[in-house]
Amino acid sequence: MKKVLVTGASGFIGRHCLPLLKSRGFEVIPVSSKSWDLLQSHPEALIEKVAPTHLLHFAWEATPGQYWTSPKNLQWLKASVDLLEAFGKKGGKRAVVAGTCAEDDPHTLYGACKLALHQILGPLSKQKGFSQAWGRIFYLYGPHEYPQRFVPSIIQGLLSGNPVPCSHGNQVRDFLHVEDVADAFATLLDSEVEGAVNIGSGVGVSLKQVIGHLTDQLGGKERVAFGALASPKNEPLSLVADVARLQDELKWKPKRSLEEGLRSTIAWWKSAP
Amino acid sequence: MKKVLVTGASGFIGRHCLPLLKSRGFEVIPVSSKSWDLLQSHPEALIEKVAPTHLLHFAWEATPGQYWTSPKNLQWLKASVDLLEAFGKKGGKRAVVAGTCAEDDPHTLYGACKLALHQILGPLSKQKGFSQAWGRIFYLYGPHEYPQRFVPSIIQGLLSGNPVPCSHGNQVRDFLHVEDVADAFATLLDSEVEGAVNIGSGVGVSLKQVIGHLTDQLGGKERVAFGALASPKNEPLSLVADVARLQDELKWKPKRSLEEGLRSTIAWWKSAP
Repeated sequence: MKKVLVTGASGFIGRHCLPLLKSRGFEVIPVSSKSWDLLQSHPEALIEKVAPTHLLHFAWEATPGQYWTSPKNLQWLKASVDLLEAFGKKGGKRAVVAGTCAEDDPHTLYGACKLALHQILGPLSKQKGFSQAWGRIFYLYGPHEYPQRFVPSIIQGLLSGNPVPCSHGNQVRDFLHVEDVADAFATLLDSEVEGAVNIGSGVGVSLKQVIGHLTDQLGGKERVAFGALASPKNEPLSLVADVARLQDELKWKPKRSLEEGLRSTIAWWKSAP
Repeated sequence: MKKVLVTGASGFIGRHCLPLLKSRGFEVIPVSSKSWDLLQSHPEALIEKVAPTHLLHFAWEATPGQYWTSPKNLQWLKASVDLLEAFGKKGGKRAVVAGTCAEDDPHTLYGACKLALHQILGPLSKQKGFSQAWGRIFYLYGPHEYPQRFVPSIIQGLLSGNPVPCSHGNQVRDFLHVEDVADAFATLLDSEVEGAVNIGSGVGVSLKQVIGHLTDQLGGKERVAFGALASPKNEPLSLVADVARLQDELKWKPKRSLEEGLRSTIAWWKSAP
């Protein structure tokens, strides 16, 4: 019997994971801050109650504009350590934790705390006798994303008929549809692959190209003002995942092209309440 | 007014720091597990009570044979984060934390937790508005060292008249006398140097050479059995500190040669109760 505790289960990726885990035969126990606040109640009580064989840990501070520097990163680091310790102590078999490409440049509290958890995970799991993987997320988009983020803000701008201010748009990124990200995590959890695995497409696309796909489908190309917004300081020009482990060890690849993924995302925003 | 809270103040390095800090004009508030258990009582209460301008944080799990894998490493990581947060919140100006050369290979829980704290320190201090440095300790010896450790165990073996089993002894390490380590920390705390600073001599010495100095002073060379003990798996053959920052930015160098330091250490063990 496989019983997985999913934290951050009502979040952007978590919610898309639940049906995928069920279809793989997992009994799924979802928790979100509404059902169990991991920063307030000690995680050990939750683990005692659920006694999961598997753990899929997404919960973390993610409020746009705040998460890079929020002191909650420190609280999430401590709560995550407590959660993983309790999981191991209770006999848990395998844990997968959501990481981030921001670990590569840990000058933010968010990147530093995620990297810190990453580095602890290996020795901690070895000591407690469970297997572990760390899924490093790159860029993603899709239904239920925070509206302030890149893809939703462009879609809403194009739909509004107003000017759409953008940065220069030459930044090259690695985008995956959130359902593909969720599927990669479900596959990773259901495998025996250990350690850090990049969750990406392996294909670099410029923000200009993404916007091009959106204007192809929605029109309004003439309203896009490249260069109207400053781009964040110190951001890398190109950040693309090395997906060798995802392809070779997990035999996984995305189910959706960027164009298809953006089309369904546009449809969702058009029908959003 | 400079008021420094020293954690681990009764420990190997901490105890040697106290007079050096006083002579630099600090009001010194020493805490040890006997006066304030940071793993049991929330550090915020201590910081509220003391309101230090400076923090010198040595306290950590250090029990020989246990500290590499002890779950207390995780507790110390969490308590250290709480301590630093509270220090910043209370208006603390400068914190120096003891790191370790074991960070370079964080496969142990000890190395991983120390590295995790190291990576959090920069962004955390920036956010809270205090200055910080991370003193990475290499190898040290001197009075009050745990008797199970390298130098004391050889001295005691030579003094006992019994055979002295050793590993092959070709490992090259960077040794500093603990009073020099303490002096380097006091200098670092009293400076404005930011970030990671290696605390070492910059000179590599083989364990065989160290043992040679000890038998020169104590005799018993014929009782030293090189190769009688296995050396730990995966240990580096050579580990020597790059002391460029210590020399160039702090203008610091050791006050004792290895020979002098070992002589005074032998004297201490001979007179030890």
